[in-house]
Amino acid sequence: MLSELTDLRDQIDEVDKFLLKILAKRLNLVTKIGKLKNIHGLPIYIAKREAKILKARRKEAKMLGVSPDLIDDLLRRIMRESLFTEHKKGFKTLCPELHSIVIIGGNGKMGQLFKHLLTLSGYQVKVLDIEDWSRAEQLLKNVGLVIVSVPPYSTDQVITQIPPLPDDCILMDLTSIKNRPLKSMLAIHRGPVLGLHPMFEPNIHCISKQVIAYCDGRYPEDYQWLLEQIKLWGVRLRRVNADEHDQNIVFIQVLHHFITFAHGLHLVEEDAKLDQILSLTSPMHRLQFMMIAQFFAGDPRLCSDIIVSLKEYLVPIKSYYHHFGEVIKFLENSDKKIFIKTFKKVSHWFGAHKRRLLIEGDRLLRHANDSYK
Amino acid sequence: MLSELTDLRDQIDEVDKFLLKILAKRLNLVTKIGKLKNIHGLPIYIAKREAKILKARRKEAKMLGVSPDLIDDLLRRIMRESLFTEHKKGFKTLCPELHSIVIIGGNGKMGQLFKHLLTLSGYQVKVLDIEDWSRAEQLLKNVGLVIVSVPPYSTDQVITQIPPLPDDCILMDLTSIKNRPLKSMLAIHRGPVLGLHPMFEPNIHCISKQVIAYCDGRYPEDYQWLLEQIKLWGVRLRRVNADEHDQNIVFIQVLHHFITFAHGLHLVEEDAKLDQILSLTSPMHRLQFMMIAQFFAGDPRLCSDIIVSLKEYLVPIKSYYHHFGEVIKFLENSDKKIFIKTFKKVSHWFGAHKRRLLIEGDRLLRHANDSYK
Repeated sequence: MLSELTDLRDQIDEVDKFLLKILAKRLNLVTKIGKLKNIHGLPIYIAKREAKILKARRKEAKMLGVSPDLIDDLLRRIMRESLFTEHKKGFKTLCPELHSIVIIGGNGKMGQLFKHLLTLSGYQVKVLDIEDWSRAEQLLKNVGLVIVSVPPYSTDQVITQIPPLPDDCILMDLTSIKNRPLKSMLAIHRGPVLGLHPMFEPNIHCISKQVIAYCDGRYPEDYQWLLEQIKLWGVRLRRVNADEHDQNIVFIQVLHHFITFAHGLHLVEEDAKLDQILSLTSPMHRLQFMMIAQFFAGDPRLCSDIIVSLKEYLVPIKSYYHHFGEVIKFLENSDKKIFIKTFKKVSHWFGAHKRRLLIEGDRLLRHANDSYK
Repeated sequence: MLSELTDLRDQIDEVDKFLLKILAKRLNLVTKIGKLKNIHGLPIYIAKREAKILKARRKEAKMLGVSPDLIDDLLRRIMRESLFTEHKKGFKTLCPELHSIVIIGGNGKMGQLFKHLLTLSGYQVKVLDIEDWSRAEQLLKNVGLVIVSVPPYSTDQVITQIPPLPDDCILMDLTSIKNRPLKSMLAIHRGPVLGLHPMFEPNIHCISKQVIAYCDGRYPEDYQWLLEQIKLWGVRLRRVNADEHDQNIVFIQVLHHFITFAHGLHLVEEDAKLDQILSLTSPMHRLQFMMIAQFFAGDPRLCSDIIVSLKEYLVPIKSYYHHFGEVIKFLENSDKKIFIKTFKKVSHWFGAHKRRLLIEGDRLLRHANDSYK
């Protein structure tokens, strides 16, 4: 029996080695495609092409008795690697006549990421950080694009300090709130103005498929090339009104930061035993600890600055706190009816998105389980 | 240029089709292994064998210029499919002389899952639900294993109603708390007693690699075969003291349920616009909405029963609420020092686990990004 098992396992090892060779071949083809795309200025991520490949292979999988979800997952993973490979090859320069680019706060992580991507796209990028402020006027002479990439609590102050810019220079910020910085930029500059909010952490593996929200400021026709350039990186751009952005960001980021911070404090104060907790958790429950760990992995000073800057969100934060207190009251009264009523309301709130979120969540948990050691 | 691109894309399609054929071959080999394992009673998931394969292929990948993480992710995904395939083949019966098994509450989702797995393992499984209670004595005559699978708020009540069982019968429960049910079972039965807590939702795709916590009750030597049987399903068993389990479960499940419920209520009361939110979210931010959606996808009545049963956890829930209030005070006072101090404390609390959780989280977010449509 053992020899039979060993024989089958050897055969599997051979199949896996073969799989490796095929991967190497595929990545090689992708590199060639990347070079072509780079020359002709085609975006490296094309959702339609991806969907077409997946649809065809899913269909063929069924006929071979292989699970369509299996080939779907594998191809998506391989495509990620392909995007990453194509990324390193650089991008076509869509505005070769642009004068230099200056990133204010360009030594921060997000600034560094944009510097990297713009350099890969063929532009000359300079950094203006606090210690360079005395040279600001000189650095900003003849500049074609200024990017403000500083923490949200200092954006306005930094913007008001910017010396006069050439009229045709694009002024753009990367702040996680959009209304105030946009107003500040429009007030100090007469030329084109654009607000951007990259919806991801700057330590991202690959920017392709990530979401960047943008708000029009002034003369959108003058920065269309810049949006197209960003699309070449494979980014999903979402145009949004600044007020709507700032309202939604409370639910997306602000509360999440705050809830996570409070959760961390609670775990420490309660002297929770992480060893025991982790030994007992399935991937679904580990998610919360992964998210908390990620939050507290940053720089304490920077994070505290950011959290304190959330003060302008005291109203929604207190509203969340109030709702939490309400639920405690329901519980103290053992009020099952109100639980059922609330439950149905929330379930209804998810509407048509429920199914999609459940499928995404389910898929993610399966992956989490695969990676679990 | 277009013809060159088309040609390269055609080549990629050919490679992908070939990949499909290899997958079919690998799954076929796995089916054969599954049959062998089934006959000889070997567990379908063997962590060492998995680690060995991954290590060898990672090394070879490096030599071929392929990313080791790529082949690692792909093989883990393929192995998941293999486990699932092996699962359907059934398991060796480790205690063929066992009399029948009765699952009290066996029409619930977790009961159904255990019925399915025990049937696949060659046992005769009967269900005793509320409507069968009049036939309880008859059903439980000559029973070899009784499994109590009812919601936590009714476990004790159900256990006390169980008619006398044969002395050699194993009495086991699946409740998410362990101390009280274990005491109740020890009080009504003189034979072997075992407490189990499956740390996953019963709608799980495949039980392999999932965690089940267990607490010894009485005569562990009499139910060793049952633990071995569960291991054959590929489950990771974790032995834990009932008190420790119940303390940790507060941090793992109870608070999570409660925080999620309050979060749902808050989103509805604040009239948050899910359409806009989802269009702006990157996978990292979607996680919270996936988790909330999953929670509110259940049966309102059952969930409200479970939440109300959390009343015995009012103290830790209120403690969390208190800590949240504290953080609001820090914010109102713009107390940066206390934020930095707390931040460092929490970061330190993660200790040696931090790195691992960050890697797991990072890996998961990349997968989330792959699946994102």
